[in-house]
Amino acid sequence: MIGVVAGVGPYAGLDLLGKILSQTVADKDQEHLTVASLSQPEAISDRTAFLLGEATLNPAFAIVEQLLKLEQMGASVVGIPCNTAHAPTIFDHIMQGLANAGSELNLLHMIAEVGRELQRIVPTINRVGVLSTIGTAVTRIYPLTLEPLGFEVLAVEDKLQSEVIHPAIYDPTYGIKACGTATRQARENLLLGVQQLQIAGAQAIILGCTEIPLAIPETHIDGMVVIDPALILARALISAVDPDRLVDRPF
Amino acid sequence: MIGVVAGVGPYAGLDLLGKILSQTVADKDQEHLTVASLSQPEAISDRTAFLLGEATLNPAFAIVEQLLKLEQMGASVVGIPCNTAHAPTIFDHIMQGLANAGSELNLLHMIAEVGRELQRIVPTINRVGVLSTIGTAVTRIYPLTLEPLGFEVLAVEDKLQSEVIHPAIYDPTYGIKACGTATRQARENLLLGVQQLQIAGAQAIILGCTEIPLAIPETHIDGMVVIDPALILARALISAVDPDRLVDRPF
Repeated sequence: MIGVVAGVGPYAGLDLLGKILSQTVADKDQEHLTVASLSQPEAISDRTAFLLGEATLNPAFAIVEQLLKLEQMGASVVGIPCNTAHAPTIFDHIMQGLANAGSELNLLHMIAEVGRELQRIVPTINRVGVLSTIGTAVTRIYPLTLEPLGFEVLAVEDKLQSEVIHPAIYDPTYGIKACGTATRQARENLLLGVQQLQIAGAQAIILGCTEIPLAIPETHIDGMVVIDPALILARALISAVDPDRLVDRPF
Repeated sequence: MIGVVAGVGPYAGLDLLGKILSQTVADKDQEHLTVASLSQPEAISDRTAFLLGEATLNPAFAIVEQLLKLEQMGASVVGIPCNTAHAPTIFDHIMQGLANAGSELNLLHMIAEVGRELQRIVPTINRVGVLSTIGTAVTRIYPLTLEPLGFEVLAVEDKLQSEVIHPAIYDPTYGIKACGTATRQARENLLLGVQQLQIAGAQAIILGCTEIPLAIPETHIDGMVVIDPALILARALISAVDPDRLVDRPF
């Protein structure tokens, strides 16, 4: 049984549940996989605030509690659709908490799965560009996971990050979070980031924030593979419980 | 905690989870309500086949097991986003199974909630038209629940049901299930049904199949209120745990 920590944040949880359905081969209801999800966002403190030192409570504790509830429910393979929860200072504590509780859960690491998928589908490349919020960029979540796998990880320059990319997600008038959908302005901003990453040498683009794929649904731009980590996590969860049910997907 | 039996069918479960989010007042992740969901469709046999006498195993047994798992997880108020699961021969068995197990779950009845919402928002009307699949129509799920509440329930004529409305959902070339989206043909077919129901005297329209709201997103057509039962169920679940969090919604 697949388990999903669906409250970090709630819309990212919904998005992952939808991708698990869309990536499963099923001709009727009964052929879909068993999935338990728990969305309990109130208990999980803000990840970015903790990573930036603005809050002291590690959200790992609440995430461990929720993972253990999913295990009680019968889940064996679990995922967390949240980039910042995969920062080592959070994720390592989650793994430790599970070990201390005697859990046998197989908790997938979304960002390591992205690295492995890149190695599978485009084995010749080693320079990847990441578009993300400031929090994910500053805390170096992608480099910390992907550099040990042999990747060089590129980010946009600080000025573009703060004035163009971050607002595409957070701006109160045109940002994806405020609008609940991808505005043309948000897409144009993010495509500027893609362009700068390509000029800097990126051979693939990772959409390192759950909102960005709403504005950039393409799987390729200018010959570069474009990766949605939630989609990769959905596929890794399916593969872990029943690889024969995985939808073929040409990149 | 809200609980959702999300596997009947899996896309209807996803739809209900999305509507619980969209109908909750929340300025940040932490303000969303706690929701546990279990999608275990393999265990739940086809509802329509059972209702039409083509299968003998009552899907109620599996649904009760899943409800009890949600209760163990901490759920107190639960819903099942499936019209056919609310047929008395299934729903009454579910209630009996919960009572036998000593459950304290508050299981909402989606179709009774639709009746109560109609009485709240348009108290002067008593003739409602229902658009649905053949299975829901033949098993009289809506009349059996709504007539005791004082409503006269209208359905389209058999010929229109089988040749126009049912294909809008099931046709392999233009049906919503096959296409995964609402085609223009599907919408045109369903609007013919709305028109016939209005001529027959309907004062409100119930979209009695989880696929239909994809093709008819309107809340009003020609002065009639249009009701999406999954939306009503989402709002009833929120009201049951925290009414202050319910988004205002003008009908």
